[in-house]
Amino acid sequence: MISLEQEVLAKNDKVAERVRGWLAGRDTVALNFMSSPGAGKTTLLERTISDLRSELPLSVIEGDQQTAHDAERILAAGCKVVQINTGAGCHLDASMVARALVQLDPPRKSLVMIENVGNLVCPALFDLGELAKVVVVSVTEGDDKPVKYPHMFRASKLMILNKIDLLPHVQFDVEKCVAFARQVNPRIEVIRLSATRGDHIEYWYGWLRKHVNELTLTGQLV
Amino acid sequence: MISLEQEVLAKNDKVAERVRGWLAGRDTVALNFMSSPGAGKTTLLERTISDLRSELPLSVIEGDQQTAHDAERILAAGCKVVQINTGAGCHLDASMVARALVQLDPPRKSLVMIENVGNLVCPALFDLGELAKVVVVSVTEGDDKPVKYPHMFRASKLMILNKIDLLPHVQFDVEKCVAFARQVNPRIEVIRLSATRGDHIEYWYGWLRKHVNELTLTGQLV
Repeated sequence: MISLEQEVLAKNDKVAERVRGWLAGRDTVALNFMSSPGAGKTTLLERTISDLRSELPLSVIEGDQQTAHDAERILAAGCKVVQINTGAGCHLDASMVARALVQLDPPRKSLVMIENVGNLVCPALFDLGELAKVVVVSVTEGDDKPVKYPHMFRASKLMILNKIDLLPHVQFDVEKCVAFARQVNPRIEVIRLSATRGDHIEYWYGWLRKHVNELTLTGQLV
Repeated sequence: MISLEQEVLAKNDKVAERVRGWLAGRDTVALNFMSSPGAGKTTLLERTISDLRSELPLSVIEGDQQTAHDAERILAAGCKVVQINTGAGCHLDASMVARALVQLDPPRKSLVMIENVGNLVCPALFDLGELAKVVVVSVTEGDDKPVKYPHMFRASKLMILNKIDLLPHVQFDVEKCVAFARQVNPRIEVIRLSATRGDHIEYWYGWLRKHVNELTLTGQLV
């Protein structure tokens, strides 16, 4: 079973590199958003779209086992979107993203936001050709998630700690959670915000401007 | 890939039946608790142990990618526990449970509570030899989870809607969530409670008494 897993991943990684090249050819980058179900990925994307679309061309690929609920929300927020339904599948892979990208046809010098299936385990293993993986954690989930799901936090460049408006109502030690995340990935960046209420949302936009704009403007293949 | 998945599942299902028989041989049953990460499974088990251990012999199998945090919490609550770490794995399978049960050595006429890896996708496919699957949903996750992850809700006998103490602070339509769950599984039972505060916890204990006691007392093999 282990050698088979390696084969599947090796095949996926090759397709992911092709996707990365296709995006670079359009001076475009993708971010891969991952989290537990219900951590607030879609709400974060909705707010980002409504606040940044005049500044940065955006489009979205939505991954879910079933339903087009999230795609409908993104569409209502005023953004191009393609929904992938994985059926029994637990993660997006690079081939699914490749097919969706052709359909999405994102404009040049733009950002594609890929919302993965809500799952803190399997998506961590699959490169989708993204610039970076972003893990969203809700403060309602408990502060020990980074050490219980280390692969996800090791693979991520940024951890967004969401729903901070609920901190007064739950037991969650922010410092402890950040320390746990740095324990498995010393270089992980952290932004705390509330996507629903908008608290600290400017830090997230600052991160996006810094990491995305410079890359979409250069569009480097290597 | 599909035929391989079927082979893996068929092999798992055979081991699961052996586990089911082993448990029946001890007049014991197991429940398989599944949820997103951080929905409150461990807190529910802690409270159940502290309230019911004089009435019903209990023991626990804990599944996590890494750490023994949950096993330590269960041990502190005064209960026998075996921790399974799945590493990169995204679910428990019947062979892992079989090995853990031998180590756990649960007493006759008892209940084994299996806390699966926090994942609303993959664990739905794997029979662990349990009497029933119980899915725990937190009201912080959004009310559309049952239609977005239908396999999980189709496989579950009971949905526990947890963290109802947070309802005043989040957007969550309880009736809508229950309707969505019944849409994918018309026979699913539903209990709303707060494991942290104890609201409505007696409904859960009533369910346990009804379903577990009658079966552990008869210990039927077929």
